[in-house]
Amino acid sequence: MAHPALEKHQKVLEQALAAIEARGYWTPYPEMPSPKIYGEEAPVKGKEAFEAHLGKQFVIDQPGQSGWHAGEKSPYGIELGVSYPVCNPDELVAASKQAMQGWQKVGAAGRTGVCLEILHRLNQQSFEIGHAVMMTTGQGWMMAFQAGGPHAQDRGLESVAYAWREQSFIPAQADWEKPQGKNPPIQMKKHFEIVGRGVGLVIGCGTFPTWNTYPGLFAALATGNGVIVKPHSNSILPAAITVRTIRQVLAEYGIDPNLVSLCVAPERSVTQQLATHPDIKSVDFTGGNTFGQWLLDHCKQANVYAELAGVNNIVIDSTDAYKAMLGNIAFTLSLYSGQMCTTTQVVFVPAGGIQTEDGHKTFDDVCTDLAKAIERFLSKPEVAHAVLGAIQSRDTAHRIEQANSGQLGTVLLSSQKLSNPEFPNAVVQTPVLLACDAADEAAYMEERFGPISFVVKVADTAAAIALSERVVSTHGALTVGIYSTNEQVIDAMTEATWRSKVALSINLTGAVLVNQSAGFSDYHGTGANPAANASYTDTAFVANRFRVIQRRYHMQA
Amino acid sequence: MAHPALEKHQKVLEQALAAIEARGYWTPYPEMPSPKIYGEEAPVKGKEAFEAHLGKQFVIDQPGQSGWHAGEKSPYGIELGVSYPVCNPDELVAASKQAMQGWQKVGAAGRTGVCLEILHRLNQQSFEIGHAVMMTTGQGWMMAFQAGGPHAQDRGLESVAYAWREQSFIPAQADWEKPQGKNPPIQMKKHFEIVGRGVGLVIGCGTFPTWNTYPGLFAALATGNGVIVKPHSNSILPAAITVRTIRQVLAEYGIDPNLVSLCVAPERSVTQQLATHPDIKSVDFTGGNTFGQWLLDHCKQANVYAELAGVNNIVIDSTDAYKAMLGNIAFTLSLYSGQMCTTTQVVFVPAGGIQTEDGHKTFDDVCTDLAKAIERFLSKPEVAHAVLGAIQSRDTAHRIEQANSGQLGTVLLSSQKLSNPEFPNAVVQTPVLLACDAADEAAYMEERFGPISFVVKVADTAAAIALSERVVSTHGALTVGIYSTNEQVIDAMTEATWRSKVALSINLTGAVLVNQSAGFSDYHGTGANPAANASYTDTAFVANRFRVIQRRYHMQA
Repeated sequence: MAHPALEKHQKVLEQALAAIEARGYWTPYPEMPSPKIYGEEAPVKGKEAFEAHLGKQFVIDQPGQSGWHAGEKSPYGIELGVSYPVCNPDELVAASKQAMQGWQKVGAAGRTGVCLEILHRLNQQSFEIGHAVMMTTGQGWMMAFQAGGPHAQDRGLESVAYAWREQSFIPAQADWEKPQGKNPPIQMKKHFEIVGRGVGLVIGCGTFPTWNTYPGLFAALATGNGVIVKPHSNSILPAAITVRTIRQVLAEYGIDPNLVSLCVAPERSVTQQLATHPDIKSVDFTGGNTFGQWLLDHCKQANVYAELAGVNNIVIDSTDAYKAMLGNIAFTLSLYSGQMCTTTQVVFVPAGGIQTEDGHKTFDDVCTDLAKAIERFLSKPEVAHAVLGAIQSRDTAHRIEQANSGQLGTVLLSSQKLSNPEFPNAVVQTPVLLACDAADEAAYMEERFGPISFVVKVADTAAAIALSERVVSTHGALTVGIYSTNEQVIDAMTEATWRSKVALSINLTGAVLVNQSAGFSDYHGTGANPAANASYTDTAFVANRFRVIQRRYHMQA
Repeated sequence: MAHPALEKHQKVLEQALAAIEARGYWTPYPEMPSPKIYGEEAPVKGKEAFEAHLGKQFVIDQPGQSGWHAGEKSPYGIELGVSYPVCNPDELVAASKQAMQGWQKVGAAGRTGVCLEILHRLNQQSFEIGHAVMMTTGQGWMMAFQAGGPHAQDRGLESVAYAWREQSFIPAQADWEKPQGKNPPIQMKKHFEIVGRGVGLVIGCGTFPTWNTYPGLFAALATGNGVIVKPHSNSILPAAITVRTIRQVLAEYGIDPNLVSLCVAPERSVTQQLATHPDIKSVDFTGGNTFGQWLLDHCKQANVYAELAGVNNIVIDSTDAYKAMLGNIAFTLSLYSGQMCTTTQVVFVPAGGIQTEDGHKTFDDVCTDLAKAIERFLSKPEVAHAVLGAIQSRDTAHRIEQANSGQLGTVLLSSQKLSNPEFPNAVVQTPVLLACDAADEAAYMEERFGPISFVVKVADTAAAIALSERVVSTHGALTVGIYSTNEQVIDAMTEATWRSKVALSINLTGAVLVNQSAGFSDYHGTGANPAANASYTDTAFVANRFRVIQRRYHMQA
């Protein structure tokens, strides 16, 4: 069972297994982009490695290449000009399926070891990947490094750990001895082979091209499957770097690198054909509801793991830390210009206002104070640019315009265009904050991806909790929050989240934001409300990606 | 975490956990219907308990009862005359959903303990349930006792063990401490609540009303869900006894018994409505492809675990135990008149015949000798009746007639009607064996449920293995077998089953039949060919039936 790559990374695996059981804080991949940790030359070399891709062909020696595709537009307005191999999807699938035979043969130990080595290499590339994520998604540098590098690697490692735990439960063989009273027992030898279900397709999103891709990628890979990564057409580079590194490591360990390939498919029809290919047995998807629902409806041959849209929300009942609460929410709404699937869109506030340590605050006070808190938080340009990053897509920019116009509610704070001195062509927008009534469901009760949030007036706290539950149950959410000094209110909100099945953050006033999800500890998505049918990461995310094929025969006496 | 029921059954749980890891032989439920094991009076009392149901109303105090339904017809021709409560399905769902709150509160330990107590009680009722299974399904007594009682309980316990293992991995809470260099760490407390997905619907089949029902029933129940059991309209009694016992045990432990209920729904439309009810979150189904496919297509709100039709097959390449092989296959084809989802339907034999220890046998020799082996095996009436049982459904009787007529292939052995002296009105039929060519795919390449099998002439062994693989991949199978004295042939068949994803039995010539699947050891179904999308039992069968809902907050300094 031993495999050199597993031996090399045995300790990380053991720690990861302990971490998924304890779900406290742990990571082997430091999140600080520090030369002390990653090496004195790592920052410069990483940036150079990123820049070396620009304007060039990104060569990956994949089968069925028919040409090159470019066209990524950086939200920071810089020229990228990288072109990627366009390959016949059927050939990629066939080659991956073929390569699965060798991948099956190295067994769970070999697969786990090789995956750990891949993650180790990707970690070493964190600066290069960080820059690639920043420039394709519009994230600020710190987030791009952290979420694009170590945090994404955490999520990949989490999948590998769950996959290993499950596979390690399957005995390679068993002796079955059934007693027959005074007669000799019936003896059978049984062998149990772990077999991947088939090639996995991982469809990336434009905002988190590694963080949302690594869980499915490594879950499928570690459980014996080949993987085709189909990145978002505007965030190809981080996926391409990842795929090339994976292929290098596979080849070093004697595995056919065509097990994993990159599929650049600008037309949706190509992705649709690929997703319904009979040999594609799993689809991991992060993105909008329209295409996500199409996949769920049409990929009958595959298990689909989908993270879709949602309407994340917070209920404010009361607080003993008013300013800190507003600061925390302001940070949440501003971070990466609200372009996180976990960002709060709706803040429910009772019509009668809230109690604070600073006395009673009316509904209008809360509206005004939250708007001011956002303004204050973003008042220093260097902070604003570091936090906001840039707007990833034209659709988001349009939604901001619409919100600014007052069509969706009273504008409490309108979005401002900022000019980034370092990237003059970057599209930078501060958040827009609106107010509306609970009855204005059409306005706030659908996902409006980007820095667009609503303070929604509800009758009282009980109504707010009930409305939050209904929003989550019917429209989905990855996160909800509650602010209250009243234990009964917190309990009521807790029980509401058990019914609507969403993760709850309580009274966040410090360094942790409701939209942050920590690998090995926080379950990202519950898998049981419309925002996602799976979670990063739990056993259900890996256990059905492989199957056990047994054979049995009588033992020779 | 402790719970009295779990303490009571702690040892069984520990042994079950060891068994699912080792997958050797183990059971806590003795399969011999012996008074020495079950108590001197158990056989008589069990039979009396069964007989006491006949001609009576089977009272279960369920909500929304509107009347009574009877109509089961015993394949043995005896009068059953039991009538069951007909209840409004919406009320059953609502009551079960309501009861889930208390079920959630007792936690995984409480649920596991209560499930173990339920299984213990069901084990004590094995004689009563055995008779109910026998008389509703047409199984012979020994199978009805074993498969209907202890073996079904094994499968239920297996689900409980897997469910416990998974749930026990989820920590109730975690302290998350993220270092901040020289500053104090960020500290959060996190709580993880295990929440069932919603009410489960378990749809039973007419032939194995407990063996095929208990896995899904206990998997859903142990993971925090309510369950509605919708039995096949001809095999209600075993399910009704089971549900009543479950409700008694639940009530004894202070759980609302409406958590689990029986839904008698003679019209398919009622089942369809129930299966697509928004609060039904899992559907376990065993049965035909038409309704199974309907469920898979329409139950978007639920996870569907389906065991459907298949074309089980055996490849004969060569043997060094010709007579024993024929005897084993004859037993397989005869057992319960081929009314097992695991029974072989197709025996592939090379056109050039096979090598045996007794010299070369032509294709025709094999055909003739297998037909004779079946005749010989069933020549003693008492053996024949014990093994064959009775024909469960009119559809099966029609299929036998069609096969006897020669429409589907050359009749090697025609089915005979037998008269059972003990049950003069029983419908008893010996197997029909047909021969045809590999090209006659329309004849043998669809499931013909019942005692109808084909010896199919293929060019050679390699072609047989390839054809077996194609049959499994395209039409599904729960079992395949190979007979060969050649290691390379066995390896080729083994690799074919890795691709087509089906369990393989090799050179069965003794007491074990290809259609027998042992709890805790044999995976029943791989979940990866068209015959079933899930397996009894593995982690994938339980892990997605519950979800983890977390809440987190800053720890007080």
